Amino acid sequence: MNADQLTDGLQTPFLLIDKNKLQANVHRLQTRIESLGAVLRPHLKTVRSLEATALILPTRSAPATVSTLAEAEALADAGYNNLLYAVGISANKLERAAALLRRGVNLHILLDSLEQAAEVAEYGLAHGVTFSAFIEIDCDGHRGGLPAADPAVVDIARRLSGAGACFQGLLTHAGESYSCSTPDCIRAAARQECGALLQTAELLQSQGIASPTLSVGSTPTAHFADDLTGITEVRAGVFTLFDLFMHNVGVCAMDDIAISIVATVIGHNKRRNTLFIDAGWMALSRDRGTASQKQDYLYGQVCDMSGTPLPGVRVNSANQEHGLIELPADGPCALERFPIGSRLRILPNHACATTAMHLQYQAIDEKEGTREVWTRITGW
Amino acid sequence: MNADQLTDGLQTPFLLIDKNKLQANVHRLQTRIESLGAVLRPHLKTVRSLEATALILPTRSAPATVSTLAEAEALADAGYNNLLYAVGISANKLERAAALLRRGVNLHILLDSLEQAAEVAEYGLAHGVTFSAFIEIDCDGHRGGLPAADPAVVDIARRLSGAGACFQGLLTHAGESYSCSTPDCIRAAARQECGALLQTAELLQSQGIASPTLSVGSTPTAHFADDLTGITEVRAGVFTLFDLFMHNVGVCAMDDIAISIVATVIGHNKRRNTLFIDAGWMALSRDRGTASQKQDYLYGQVCDMSGTPLPGVRVNSANQEHGLIELPADGPCALERFPIGSRLRILPNHACATTAMHLQYQAIDEKEGTREVWTRITGW
Repeated sequence: MNADQLTDGLQTPFLLIDKNKLQANVHRLQTRIESLGAVLRPHLKTVRSLEATALILPTRSAPATVSTLAEAEALADAGYNNLLYAVGISANKLERAAALLRRGVNLHILLDSLEQAAEVAEYGLAHGVTFSAFIEIDCDGHRGGLPAADPAVVDIARRLSGAGACFQGLLTHAGESYSCSTPDCIRAAARQECGALLQTAELLQSQGIASPTLSVGSTPTAHFADDLTGITEVRAGVFTLFDLFMHNVGVCAMDDIAISIVATVIGHNKRRNTLFIDAGWMALSRDRGTASQKQDYLYGQVCDMSGTPLPGVRVNSANQEHGLIELPADGPCALERFPIGSRLRILPNHACATTAMHLQYQAIDEKEGTREVWTRITGW
Repeated sequence: MNADQLTDGLQTPFLLIDKNKLQANVHRLQTRIESLGAVLRPHLKTVRSLEATALILPTRSAPATVSTLAEAEALADAGYNNLLYAVGISANKLERAAALLRRGVNLHILLDSLEQAAEVAEYGLAHGVTFSAFIEIDCDGHRGGLPAADPAVVDIARRLSGAGACFQGLLTHAGESYSCSTPDCIRAAARQECGALLQTAELLQSQGIASPTLSVGSTPTAHFADDLTGITEVRAGVFTLFDLFMHNVGVCAMDDIAISIVATVIGHNKRRNTLFIDAGWMALSRDRGTASQKQDYLYGQVCDMSGTPLPGVRVNSANQEHGLIELPADGPCALERFPIGSRLRILPNHACATTAMHLQYQAIDEKEGTREVWTRITGW
């Protein structure tokens, strides 16, 4: 059964996930990272769903990354126990982090300052828990973190070495790889990412401090890194679903994109060859990430219900609950092809932002002919 | 008690609503529209919360506008019974619309084609309900609707006059007013909006068809229209909370903005005078509406916890769960003022998009010294 049949009668707009594509995306990267001698620690922030997690992680104790404590708590409830909370920690979140440790979750936190390290270690000591902490390294000026081989890293690692805390290793994220559009550019970002950690670990080693884990990652570098010598783990998130942004970066084919929004045609403007659909930015998200890339997909690439892209047809603009699609005046994509009430699928610019607009996803398996409703983990 | 005290200990990020400001915003527009001889039909899509609705609507039978049937159903459950679903109807939504009618809700739907009118009338006839329908008029080329005085309006209104449907009137939305930045520009948009409906109603009248309701509206035109002669009702939504976009349009003072996101400082980059906060686009939204306006607020205006804007300090960029704020190298807003763990308030570009990222809101009343948790109505 196809997507059209498997979703017949559902109220639009809704978010559709192609399970077979998701599984193929996961298998490809899992195999790749293993063959390079490292472990994949998938970032679950893209789908944020227990049903998806069961397909993304091989076991309940496999390493995973989360972007909120709410995800960590929901995953812990489901028995997952190796979680990295990859956003700089603040004191107001330590109570919830400690509660996860007491439940037996192998939770790792992230920091990049001596102030944070002191707060963490003191809280741990005072409350009888030992926080496992990564130090964030800034490999390309995109986010938090200290520069590679910054001497401050030594002080922070030492501060994490007493009671209350333990130094787990170094973490970096090659945000710069998102602005690439060639394999060479991504490979250079991957080398920079690994180099920043290896160089910092060497400094620590020279001071007698071991870095048990070196964690790099971004979806582009994970797919193009050709040497992970010395690196223990790789994080990536959006690779599970992919999107138009990653297609522009050159990491996936259009056909690998496992997420789309299904919408109904609710109006025609015959004077302007324009369609209105019932998916606006509430369903598609406000993300316009492709605006700065080689191909701007506006508010998304329009496909027929089989998922085949209609060449040159995009969602041109979006109101809260209306999407507007400008069509060519004639040819196979002229207005008559899309009667009011017919349905379309829209590939989004950014999967993480589009899933965030939905509390449920319709996950179909066209091979098995099944459809499941997946639930999003919400909040912080 | 102030906002800082009323929200002490809450996990960040969260969405804060100032009830006193919301009530003042509602009172101001309600009074204004009444003084012009029309009725306000507030658009509830901005806040989407029953608790807010109790402050926005004077009674359970007061007219309101919604953007989804999910809102209409939640409001009907709470006893509200005069609801306009202001998105073009499609056949797949008629069953739910009919269910609302059977529950005694005075639900109005919207359409702009003969095909839709026929579908609606036939469904109504077949299922023993009478749909009350507005015809959408396009006053400025921004969305759906037929041009003012388009002869097709007569055919559609006639098609809505038999069993199964009734013609309730004409509706338009001055989307063009959003690109204004002066009162004169907005007043011109208001005249165009009213003129489009009055001209179309005249055409219908000449054919013996009365238009019981003429519904105009947008937050800018509602605040600047100076003549609503012949217009029965005015819709507006974002005026309840206001935002930086509307401030740029010139509709509100910065101090009227009743919505902010509270975030915690989670990192410093001392080399670049940069702060990291735990509010990224998941909390702020991806909306960059002010990018095309006279003042670009990037991802939001930064305020201290009292809500006082810090001059020139904005959220420069946003990852999923990180916001990055570039500070001046020295002066009152230098890095030392914002230790890790301290909190800030961010005014958003677009209130409708920012509320959409949150399932709950913290609503404070600084005069009464109270805080409530409001729940968002979700889904479609």
